[in-house]
Amino acid sequence: MMGEPYLLLPGPTPIPERVARAMNRPMINHRGIEFKDILEDVVDGIKKIYRTESDVLIYPSSGTGGLEAAVVNFISPGEKVLALSIGIFGDRFASIASNFGADVEKMSFAWGTGVDPEQVKKRLLEDKNREIKAILITHNETSTGAFNDLKSIRDIMGDHPALLLVDAVSGMAAIDLKMDEWQLDVVVSGSQKAFMLPPGLSFLAFSQKAYQVYLHNKNNKYYWDIAEGLKYMEKGQTPFTPPISLYYGLQEALRMMLEEGVDKVIARHKGYRDIVRASIKAMGLELLAEDRYASPAVTSVVAPQDIGANPIRNYMQEEFNIVLAGGQQKLDNVIFRVGHLGYVRELDLLSVLAALEITLVRFGFPLKLGVGLQAAQQVIYERHQK
Amino acid sequence: MMGEPYLLLPGPTPIPERVARAMNRPMINHRGIEFKDILEDVVDGIKKIYRTESDVLIYPSSGTGGLEAAVVNFISPGEKVLALSIGIFGDRFASIASNFGADVEKMSFAWGTGVDPEQVKKRLLEDKNREIKAILITHNETSTGAFNDLKSIRDIMGDHPALLLVDAVSGMAAIDLKMDEWQLDVVVSGSQKAFMLPPGLSFLAFSQKAYQVYLHNKNNKYYWDIAEGLKYMEKGQTPFTPPISLYYGLQEALRMMLEEGVDKVIARHKGYRDIVRASIKAMGLELLAEDRYASPAVTSVVAPQDIGANPIRNYMQEEFNIVLAGGQQKLDNVIFRVGHLGYVRELDLLSVLAALEITLVRFGFPLKLGVGLQAAQQVIYERHQK
Repeated sequence: MMGEPYLLLPGPTPIPERVARAMNRPMINHRGIEFKDILEDVVDGIKKIYRTESDVLIYPSSGTGGLEAAVVNFISPGEKVLALSIGIFGDRFASIASNFGADVEKMSFAWGTGVDPEQVKKRLLEDKNREIKAILITHNETSTGAFNDLKSIRDIMGDHPALLLVDAVSGMAAIDLKMDEWQLDVVVSGSQKAFMLPPGLSFLAFSQKAYQVYLHNKNNKYYWDIAEGLKYMEKGQTPFTPPISLYYGLQEALRMMLEEGVDKVIARHKGYRDIVRASIKAMGLELLAEDRYASPAVTSVVAPQDIGANPIRNYMQEEFNIVLAGGQQKLDNVIFRVGHLGYVRELDLLSVLAALEITLVRFGFPLKLGVGLQAAQQVIYERHQK
Repeated sequence: MMGEPYLLLPGPTPIPERVARAMNRPMINHRGIEFKDILEDVVDGIKKIYRTESDVLIYPSSGTGGLEAAVVNFISPGEKVLALSIGIFGDRFASIASNFGADVEKMSFAWGTGVDPEQVKKRLLEDKNREIKAILITHNETSTGAFNDLKSIRDIMGDHPALLLVDAVSGMAAIDLKMDEWQLDVVVSGSQKAFMLPPGLSFLAFSQKAYQVYLHNKNNKYYWDIAEGLKYMEKGQTPFTPPISLYYGLQEALRMMLEEGVDKVIARHKGYRDIVRASIKAMGLELLAEDRYASPAVTSVVAPQDIGANPIRNYMQEEFNIVLAGGQQKLDNVIFRVGHLGYVRELDLLSVLAALEITLVRFGFPLKLGVGLQAAQQVIYERHQK
């Protein structure tokens, strides 16, 4: 089909031309001065996105690798861990901790909602002997399109000494997160989301409090060991060969994000969410996440039952070259997910929503063409009056 | 300085234009049909390079990650491991096994030589109770420029049941390796070496015998767990988001390697070694590795003591835009290393050797300009008569 596809996944996301060009530069010595400059520059940029002064390490890995790094450095086998799950990625974080011998207690919340701080508060009050050493939480739950308000969770922890470990792989830079101000201990994110890069890098930041916990950590480790990363960082290197092309891209992507401004990047994602949700509602379709939990990174739409989510996705791909994500596990064929992360233009959303309307009508869904489109346009109009 | 740099490192290596262009393609859904085709194609290609019918998994990681995967899947805590080390990367493989609780016995051989099969044979004969569960060996020792003849090591193992785990990160496709014919159990390699790609992918192949051992493995694991990789491979996916750009590049690089032919790729690297070594000898410089252990991937040159290796490297970089690797640990400033891996043209080596001669004369080393160059040219001439 003519033209580039519309890639509206919750990662990987479209790559800006500037980033693609940067990635094309020839290889360099990763033990040389040029790489040192790049490493220092990107670490500095990531800290600005994370809003932290903490140490940040970059791993050559998927986001899941960064989560494993969080677990093996900051949780010891046998330790009690409270895992707050609102979907598949919350479950995954819990599984990683279990696999490394932690005593994991999982609190699950209905898919499409966020963690209820009151329930967590109650559980922590019961923990009189302070046996819970770590709390795991997902910033943005990619599988459902709901997000957690990390600040409220941290607030209800009060003076409980557990570390708060955050999976912000798909949420970072799309949804507000202030690592230092909110006193988050460990925050993981990945390259293929709001960072506008191909997959292959994960980022791990940790507080001084977490570092003190690390010093007594009893896990077997090598690749993920933060001591190695910190040691090499002092010489402007990484312990193992870094994915150099992705570093070039990261440097350029961070420049773009900082030129735009972190607050504006976050506001932009919130705008995408509002456009998509207003339009979907106007079409008369159901949204999986309630408004107060609705993710600025990805929107899950419940497909009309008699049509199913996958035929809609397939038709949109075949007819319009639009790539949406499906539902996972029990949500397969129930929902489709519109990713609006990273390098997306707001007017592109109109194209996707128009195509969705056409698809729905094609499958016999009762809808007047243009109703959703007009609702989206109205939100865009309002955003531009501000 | 004008023009592209001459990158003669033992990884990362220059990226072919075809590969760079392939990497620039837009992102796709890694859970979709397009990715499935790519994954199947690249796994098939890697098997041809490895000369194996075994399963191959691809990790989003540095080469060291692949080594960690080999350790955590196939060695259990407390098991006796014989680590054969001929340099820094042999030491690293041993360290990974130690860090994961193995009972590691390290046999070290002089830097610049390979493993002596007779000494290993003697050690295995002493192991009457077959307590040694795994043997670790480096295919190509990047730190010294020596390689191990894996076939002779496997041959002396006879019917000893230990698994043979091979770090072929920098050796694969540059030095002969026939995984199935030689009965190697676990073989790890990485993208940024003879595969002509940027860093960011590691490859792990394992025999059926190794898989049986895996089934009883007691390590805590998640990211590296081969069960996950195998499960997703059946649906044409990877468990965690794959570095899609690098997969595009891998597909193109494998095409180039298979168009050339694996035997020819290996012969080409042997030719590079012969060119460089003949030239260095003619210049009157000392080589760290003896001829019989000399690596086709990288050549370590002992710098004249009164000059030092680093001033030579620095001058060559400043004056000629030639990037060579330094010596590591006790070899710092003692040797410099000329990588001749992957996408190198044989005539490029003449440029580098000419610049080296000029540099040596500049630092007062007694040498008639052109002596080394002529020796290199003679080897190239002879290669082209065949």
